[in-house]
Amino acid sequence: MIPIPLLALVAPALCLKAFDNGVGHTPQMGWNSWNKYGCNINESVIISAAETMNQLGLLQYGYEYIVMDDCYQLKERDSETGKIVVDPQRFPNGIKYLSDRVHQLGFKFGMYSSAGKFTCGRYPGSLGYEELDAQTFADWGVDYLKYDNCFNEGMSGNEKISSDRYLKMSQALNATGRTIFYSLCQWGEDNVWNWGTTLSNSWRVTGDIYDSFNRYDDRCPCESFDCAGIQGNSCSMVNIFEKAIPLAQKSGPFEGWNDLDSLEVGNGGMTTNEYKAHFTLWAILKSPLVLGNDLPRMSQTDFAIITNKDIIAINQDFSSPAVRVWKRAVKGGHLSLLVNKLADPYVFTVTLFNSGDRKERLEVKFSDIFFDHPGFQESSFTARDLWTNETMDVKQRFFTAVNKHSVKVWNFVL
Amino acid sequence: MIPIPLLALVAPALCLKAFDNGVGHTPQMGWNSWNKYGCNINESVIISAAETMNQLGLLQYGYEYIVMDDCYQLKERDSETGKIVVDPQRFPNGIKYLSDRVHQLGFKFGMYSSAGKFTCGRYPGSLGYEELDAQTFADWGVDYLKYDNCFNEGMSGNEKISSDRYLKMSQALNATGRTIFYSLCQWGEDNVWNWGTTLSNSWRVTGDIYDSFNRYDDRCPCESFDCAGIQGNSCSMVNIFEKAIPLAQKSGPFEGWNDLDSLEVGNGGMTTNEYKAHFTLWAILKSPLVLGNDLPRMSQTDFAIITNKDIIAINQDFSSPAVRVWKRAVKGGHLSLLVNKLADPYVFTVTLFNSGDRKERLEVKFSDIFFDHPGFQESSFTARDLWTNETMDVKQRFFTAVNKHSVKVWNFVL
Amino acid sequence: MIPIPLLALVAPALCLKAFDNGVGHTPQMGWNSWNKYGCNINESVIISAAETMNQLGLLQYGYEYIVMDDCYQLKERDSETGKIVVDPQRFPNGIKYLSDRVHQLGFKFGMYSSAGKFTCGRYPGSLGYEELDAQTFADWGVDYLKYDNCFNEGMSGNEKISSDRYLKMSQALNATGRTIFYSLCQWGEDNVWNWGTTLSNSWRVTGDIYDSFNRYDDRCPCESFDCAGIQGNSCSMVNIFEKAIPLAQKSGPFEGWNDLDSLEVGNGGMTTNEYKAHFTLWAILKSPLVLGNDLPRMSQTDFAIITNKDIIAINQDFSSPAVRVWKRAVKGGHLSLLVNKLADPYVFTVTLFNSGDRKERLEVKFSDIFFDHPGFQESSFTARDLWTNETMDVKQRFFTAVNKHSVKVWNFVL
Amino acid sequence: MIPIPLLALVAPALCLKAFDNGVGHTPQMGWNSWNKYGCNINESVIISAAETMNQLGLLQYGYEYIVMDDCYQLKERDSETGKIVVDPQRFPNGIKYLSDRVHQLGFKFGMYSSAGKFTCGRYPGSLGYEELDAQTFADWGVDYLKYDNCFNEGMSGNEKISSDRYLKMSQALNATGRTIFYSLCQWGEDNVWNWGTTLSNSWRVTGDIYDSFNRYDDRCPCESFDCAGIQGNSCSMVNIFEKAIPLAQKSGPFEGWNDLDSLEVGNGGMTTNEYKAHFTLWAILKSPLVLGNDLPRMSQTDFAIITNKDIIAINQDFSSPAVRVWKRAVKGGHLSLLVNKLADPYVFTVTLFNSGDRKERLEVKFSDIFFDHPGFQESSFTARDLWTNETMDVKQRFFTAVNKHSVKVWNFVL
Repeated sequence: MIPIPLLALVAPALCLKAFDNGVGHTPQMGWNSWNKYGCNINESVIISAAETMNQLGLLQYGYEYIVMDDCYQLKERDSETGKIVVDPQRFPNGIKYLSDRVHQLGFKFGMYSSAGKFTCGRYPGSLGYEELDAQTFADWGVDYLKYDNCFNEGMSGNEKISSDRYLKMSQALNATGRTIFYSLCQWGEDNVWNWGTTLSNSWRVTGDIYDSFNRYDDRCPCESFDCAGIQGNSCSMVNIFEKAIPLAQKSGPFEGWNDLDSLEVGNGGMTTNEYKAHFTLWAILKSPLVLGNDLPRMSQTDFAIITNKDIIAINQDFSSPAVRVWKRAVKGGHLSLLVNKLADPYVFTVTLFNSGDRKERLEVKFSDIFFDHPGFQESSFTARDLWTNETMDVKQRFFTAVNKHSVKVWNFVL
Repeated sequence: MIPIPLLALVAPALCLKAFDNGVGHTPQMGWNSWNKYGCNINESVIISAAETMNQLGLLQYGYEYIVMDDCYQLKERDSETGKIVVDPQRFPNGIKYLSDRVHQLGFKFGMYSSAGKFTCGRYPGSLGYEELDAQTFADWGVDYLKYDNCFNEGMSGNEKISSDRYLKMSQALNATGRTIFYSLCQWGEDNVWNWGTTLSNSWRVTGDIYDSFNRYDDRCPCESFDCAGIQGNSCSMVNIFEKAIPLAQKSGPFEGWNDLDSLEVGNGGMTTNEYKAHFTLWAILKSPLVLGNDLPRMSQTDFAIITNKDIIAINQDFSSPAVRVWKRAVKGGHLSLLVNKLADPYVFTVTLFNSGDRKERLEVKFSDIFFDHPGFQESSFTARDLWTNETMDVKQRFFTAVNKHSVKVWNFVL
Repeated sequence: MIPIPLLALVAPALCLKAFDNGVGHTPQMGWNSWNKYGCNINESVIISAAETMNQLGLLQYGYEYIVMDDCYQLKERDSETGKIVVDPQRFPNGIKYLSDRVHQLGFKFGMYSSAGKFTCGRYPGSLGYEELDAQTFADWGVDYLKYDNCFNEGMSGNEKISSDRYLKMSQALNATGRTIFYSLCQWGEDNVWNWGTTLSNSWRVTGDIYDSFNRYDDRCPCESFDCAGIQGNSCSMVNIFEKAIPLAQKSGPFEGWNDLDSLEVGNGGMTTNEYKAHFTLWAILKSPLVLGNDLPRMSQTDFAIITNKDIIAINQDFSSPAVRVWKRAVKGGHLSLLVNKLADPYVFTVTLFNSGDRKERLEVKFSDIFFDHPGFQESSFTARDLWTNETMDVKQRFFTAVNKHSVKVWNFVL
Repeated sequence: MIPIPLLALVAPALCLKAFDNGVGHTPQMGWNSWNKYGCNINESVIISAAETMNQLGLLQYGYEYIVMDDCYQLKERDSETGKIVVDPQRFPNGIKYLSDRVHQLGFKFGMYSSAGKFTCGRYPGSLGYEELDAQTFADWGVDYLKYDNCFNEGMSGNEKISSDRYLKMSQALNATGRTIFYSLCQWGEDNVWNWGTTLSNSWRVTGDIYDSFNRYDDRCPCESFDCAGIQGNSCSMVNIFEKAIPLAQKSGPFEGWNDLDSLEVGNGGMTTNEYKAHFTLWAILKSPLVLGNDLPRMSQTDFAIITNKDIIAINQDFSSPAVRVWKRAVKGGHLSLLVNKLADPYVFTVTLFNSGDRKERLEVKFSDIFFDHPGFQESSFTARDLWTNETMDVKQRFFTAVNKHSVKVWNFVL
């Protein structure tokens, strides 16, 4: 079996990226404060999070960004300088101190703003203050900016209007001279997948996820990527997965990354099999892997999910997202076959996802798995199950079964 | 049971509103002249209306705005000053006199214009005259502006174009220094729910309502919020309700209000149960509650509906609109469960709406009611029916029945 | 029975029109050269057409505009003046001579251009030449301009872009000081019904009609008014009728007219019943009634259709388009009930349209007919069939039958 | 039988084209390097291709353009001149030498760029460099430009924005004084069929084709021409055919050409009958016929398909695309009747396409074939099958059968 190097992949010497600020050659990994703490953040919350990440050894798995989300600010900018003012009660030592501490623990430090009049929490937004705020972030030692879409004052409606708005911060960040990962949180409006590539490292493609496998919620009214008017929130994992599939072609090492939103693993709304499916699908579709759970209280089971080195390796492999070969209706959902062609020319990842309500048995044909790579249809492979570690030698076709709401995923090595 | 204060709720000391002109912290309540009088308005009509409102004691229920709609003008602006000229025959004492009289009766005074070349009644519109007209309104003592969308001369088609048009009047109103509630009547075009929040207090989200429970009319051809081309009129109550549900997330004390259009209660096109449903749904979705009926001839039954203090209290509670937990197809319509989390942390409002054609019996589970608040799923509540005042002690689940075209609504108090 | 004056209706003294150039208070009527002659026009063709119209006495029925469509020009503008140059071989005496002759015969004279680089026949278009061409038309004595949408060089995509383009010619025509009916042929793109009203007298709302009752043709791929990308041609009569119904609310004496495209009566593709339906539906929806057939060879049957004074009177009545009360699926199509409230407060027009494939029997209820006017639901009416002239006294309900692909239409007089 | 001249058709003396740069009076034919070689191109690859084309005698069939696609450049423009720099290793003698060699072999020489920041292969794009690059291409002796849409930096979203972007290169090419065929590869976004006509010779109307008859692929999520957000790739032949049918009306000798993407004939993914259908449908819809296969290894069967003179003659006839008369659902697909009216007034091409999964027998009526030309419905024709060369005399109707996934196509000669 050919080993898959973990976190050792580097971009080619001659970089061909559409937008290249030196980072984002593979999807970002890290942790974000919002899901657990919301607006209840302060200096110790962030430092504790970084310390916990450090103690859990998550950096070695690739989780490198500690992102502090909204609500670190005062309600008004500084009346003289116009700068964002950090809440002195919650951050008595300021952000630079915090940033230094995160760096000392080995992590990179991320922050948040919105391309609007306000942030989503109604603190000062960066629309019209792009250069000033970018410089402020750079001065603070920030390595990552999550840039939201709230209160954008009607600056949307077609690609041109929205991209101009997000371009301003892109240029402002680059102008600081500091390397800052630029992560758009624009919800997939105005076909961001067509223009995010030339101005950012990653871009959200849907409304907000919530911790549900496939429950429909009126707050996320669209079932297709082609969603006008309201992207919403409370989008289930399967809802986002299905929207993201046609967009996968716009994502890759040279393009930047479709962001399917942060992970819900560990938050309790899904079964273990569902979380394994969630983590696997996000990984093979090359979504950023950003944790949002309560790390200190994470169960061993959940820890095992988010630290599956084989799954992470697919996500961080220098290659494109999975392609879905087929989708079949089954009771209560669909059965899908997805295939990743990895950077190693002799390794493929094969995923079966059963979103239906009962176990499905099926025959999987090499003519399907290697539809895009017909030269391999007659080859023999060793297939290793990335959740059980079992191996099998396969050729031409094989039979298997997939539990309800579950994935099976193998690395196929020639 | 914890009492729900009526009209006693105030905004937090530190206001976080996206647009803050000092009003609109809860949905506006009042009366509008159009449905009853159309263009047949004059000084005595408005004064009589205010007097009737006063005699009926509606102010104490929260109905505070008396809004005079279109047709108070002459067809031409003043040739010298460019100002709107009030029809001297119908308003012999001018608008300031009228405004003073409304104020003396304890109400606030609202007027109307359109962000177009003409108003919908083809009187001079305010497009291009925003500052002049705003100052005119302020000089007249106006407290509220309903701002329509007729004859907009093609100034629409994306968020940017439409929001720029409505922003002008927003800035003009604020520049007068007078507090004027700004109510957009833009019919939900160009995703107004995304940008109305930073420039207004409320915004219509659909075409015009008519006095029908659920009859389809070709003049309102869209069944979904995502409606391009023609919002229309003659939209049934259920049509508007269903369109408004996914948009509820864009409404709230810090955002402003989705306006589902004025109330039809008292106009005779629905049964008492249907009107109770209409009033309840508008209230829990935090729509403005603006009466449009013939007040002096209102039946006791209808008066009882619009003055249900418990229902009004939900509408005026400093909290977000109801969330629909589930929607189930039933014969002739749907059965829906909606839940409001009130500002009081221990009180919820639970609404069942049966738009179908026969009585529906069902079991209601706490796991559904408290889907968004799982910490309460095991608690015991006292549930009070807000239309019958009956109470019951409930835990985990209960059985109930909802008549056709009816709601049941309870306050659940821990 | 109250007589309905034919062609005697005038606009109120105080005109309230959104766009008022002195004409278009009722839908235009006339004849257009395109359907019969296409590009094969010349001086004698137009003069002969006017003479035939005169001899047939069509003016007295209201057909007043003789519109010469595309292909009167040379391929290049005058190199010095920039003006459109008329083909001297086909129009040896020039357009002014032609115009004078049409006027002498009692008709008004219309011409054609396109808001594009070229006309649809690839002659010089008026985009960028609005003022020059408008003055040329005025100098020629033109009373009507049909203004097309071909080769618009991408000047479309939202209301603002399209309306700006058509506004230029509107202003140019008015600047000439001559009264010129302004008829948009913009195919219903970019929601023209929302902005045509402030700059024109009428506007096409769909792709081109062809002479078929209800045959689907791939060249007209949309079935709904909400059609993006390609309006097309070869739209059947029923296709256009269904698209126009929701738009009827945007049309009226004070708004201008939805143009459902010219009439196919007399062109042979439909049965007599189908043509009666076509003529009736166009009339009650207040479409312009512009003939496009071969007048000298018109059959007596077809002549009788287009000169039905009662049907024409509904079209020319100073009132709004028909409202569809209901639509019911029947074998092979739909059965619809449409009602016009005429200017005379005691007269209604009631139309049943059966687009299905077999005769339909039904009961018609006054509660449906007078849905929008409930005060008449208990009244007695004399109903006169406008195609057979038979009368009946009706109250509350009546039974009738409608042949396949046919209308029945009555005037209901109190 | 009236002979159909092959490649002898010329444009009328008085050219009426919407955009006329002297070429493109019929759809372009040729070969493109991408499908076979991708980025692996160099001087000898292109020269060998031209030599092979020459040896196969493909020029005499009309294949005249040798188009070198992406990846001939260095990653950076010349720092002094700003010009695109050709890779000196792969093109040691420069492009002018290559162009001369192609010309010597009798072909015209085409190149590639993108209306974006980068080409799709991430080499320098021409957005913002239109004049410089057009002059560079002209200096190199280029006769054809394929102009792509990658990395357009949000310069899309409505017709105006996109057409302005493509207009710049159109004007730049014309300004060089050299005749350069201008081929848009903009994927059918923003209704290119409405504005491509005034600025280019042809325009792609869909996402990229792949070598499959009708397999659905998630990478091409739209089934209709009206596709927002992502046109994608891996569009099957039938997917593209169905999208192109309603757009055929926008294509013709005076308009320019809908480009259905290059041919897959010879690439192995379809059966011989499927490739015959593919080639026939592209030809009768007047798509450019651009080969993309491995010419030296082409089978005799595939060579016979792409050199069917009768089929090519329809494509190159000075007439409009086929019209679909009807489409009927059959098992696994549809059966369609398509008719071309050729420039010779007495010749029609009649095509039956069975996309279904079994052989279909049917009666074909002249009333259908000559639906648009009723004058021929009673005529007698000699019908020649353009794949078997068999003839039959037909009148009024005939019976035939079409194999699954196959076409039958006849020339009907009066």
